[in-house]
Amino acid sequence: MFFPAPTPTLTGATRLVGMVGNPIRQAKSPENFNPLFARHGIDAVMVPMEIESDRFEADMPALMRLANLDGVVVTMPFKARIVPMLDHVDDSARRVGAVNAARRRPDGTWEGSIFDGVGLVGAVRTLGVEPAGLRVGLVGAGGAGSAIAFALADRGVRSLSVTDRNADRAASLAARVASGGTPAEPRAALDLAQLDLLVNASPVGMGPDDRSPVDLSGLHERLAVVDIVTRPATALLEAARRAGCRAVGGAAMVAAQTEAIVEFLGIGPSESRTTAQTN
Amino acid sequence: MFFPAPTPTLTGATRLVGMVGNPIRQAKSPENFNPLFARHGIDAVMVPMEIESDRFEADMPALMRLANLDGVVVTMPFKARIVPMLDHVDDSARRVGAVNAARRRPDGTWEGSIFDGVGLVGAVRTLGVEPAGLRVGLVGAGGAGSAIAFALADRGVRSLSVTDRNADRAASLAARVASGGTPAEPRAALDLAQLDLLVNASPVGMGPDDRSPVDLSGLHERLAVVDIVTRPATALLEAARRAGCRAVGGAAMVAAQTEAIVEFLGIGPSESRTTAQTN
Repeated sequence: MFFPAPTPTLTGATRLVGMVGNPIRQAKSPENFNPLFARHGIDAVMVPMEIESDRFEADMPALMRLANLDGVVVTMPFKARIVPMLDHVDDSARRVGAVNAARRRPDGTWEGSIFDGVGLVGAVRTLGVEPAGLRVGLVGAGGAGSAIAFALADRGVRSLSVTDRNADRAASLAARVASGGTPAEPRAALDLAQLDLLVNASPVGMGPDDRSPVDLSGLHERLAVVDIVTRPATALLEAARRAGCRAVGGAAMVAAQTEAIVEFLGIGPSESRTTAQTN
Repeated sequence: MFFPAPTPTLTGATRLVGMVGNPIRQAKSPENFNPLFARHGIDAVMVPMEIESDRFEADMPALMRLANLDGVVVTMPFKARIVPMLDHVDDSARRVGAVNAARRRPDGTWEGSIFDGVGLVGAVRTLGVEPAGLRVGLVGAGGAGSAIAFALADRGVRSLSVTDRNADRAASLAARVASGGTPAEPRAALDLAQLDLLVNASPVGMGPDDRSPVDLSGLHERLAVVDIVTRPATALLEAARRAGCRAVGGAAMVAAQTEAIVEFLGIGPSESRTTAQTN
């Protein structure tokens, strides 16, 4: 359902979603989520909540008991540390050992999930590409890379080649994906000529002077490229576009992820707003 | 300082002020404070935080450790219960044993104060009346009534007559005010003919069918009347206006109190906003 955004007025009845991390001042989620809540007529607001790192285990449970807090979005350094506080985590979060959102269920228990994989798949689809059957190269086997690897495996990719500056981490992720039945191998380097989809899930590209995280010699125009770095023009994206590839940056992943988290949070339109819309 | 309100965009850098109470959905403070923050170019947002009453002592300290929480506004049933958690309370709060706002000081300690008295004095002044030298009648010797009594005593009223359905409470408040040097007496009923200023600090008038909280037979046009009930037209206010009195309702007190609390919270304009204004 979509209708023009009402002017969002925060009242005593507005539901809270916490954006939890440390530091938090750089977080873009409040700017991404709040217009979406307003556009969907949801009387909720996302507010940054900066928790001292050494107090997280003691203080986070108290925040989660706020009676008008319906959910949290979690960022560094708490994505793994919140897991023991949750009553339920879904398969995607369990495999990665981390969540980036949690919600209070109607029975009062808390449930967490991770949306990097859903976001990446959404970004791939904006290119008109379906992951099923593709030979995928993945740069970066950290938290986001892991969530992306499992999500792509779930969508039936043909094979996954994983590279990481930390070879052990790449080997571990490949082994875990392979144990689920998807052919997966760690690589010292990726050969783009052998790939249909390339995903950069490493931080290389965040710096304005960063070069491409992969050797571009095998770049070909049938390769689809997603760079999860949110800078609009990384070296990888620029090279891919010059080569005629379909290519998209991290903003598309954030957009897909944000939509999925709003749906997950499941905060209904308030009664008054619903009434206002139908009158 | 006043300048046109920027469109308030909540970001990761936005400072938090909690509106703490239970229940909280009826609280008007977010609607009162947030436009004021925006108008003053303060990058802060007040959000409702509903704490379970039986968890307050355990959970409130955790909330107060949120690194981006600069202050709280406190309502029922926590105005007295928060006092032991504060490092400093000023005289007004100590005498009443309650606060309605607390702020984090630069050294990290918490300081509380109560603003009902300041708000009431502000409301009286909107009538063009100065409290000094007046004979005052006060209905209601609860938390708000107590704060109002001490604030009026501090402003040099000539005398204070206090009435309350609970005679002991009226007697106790009158004795405490008198001990500070201001003539003060408990009364079974007020004689309006003997007063210059009448303040209703009781809840009588909140119900749409409520009658006046005082016998109106002595009403005279030189009496100034403040009814702290926020309904626009209580029986007391309507009678006072018919009699030609200067009279004002609770909205004027709320406005004065809100301004005073914003000043107390002392959240400076953010650097980016200040820069945006001067460029």
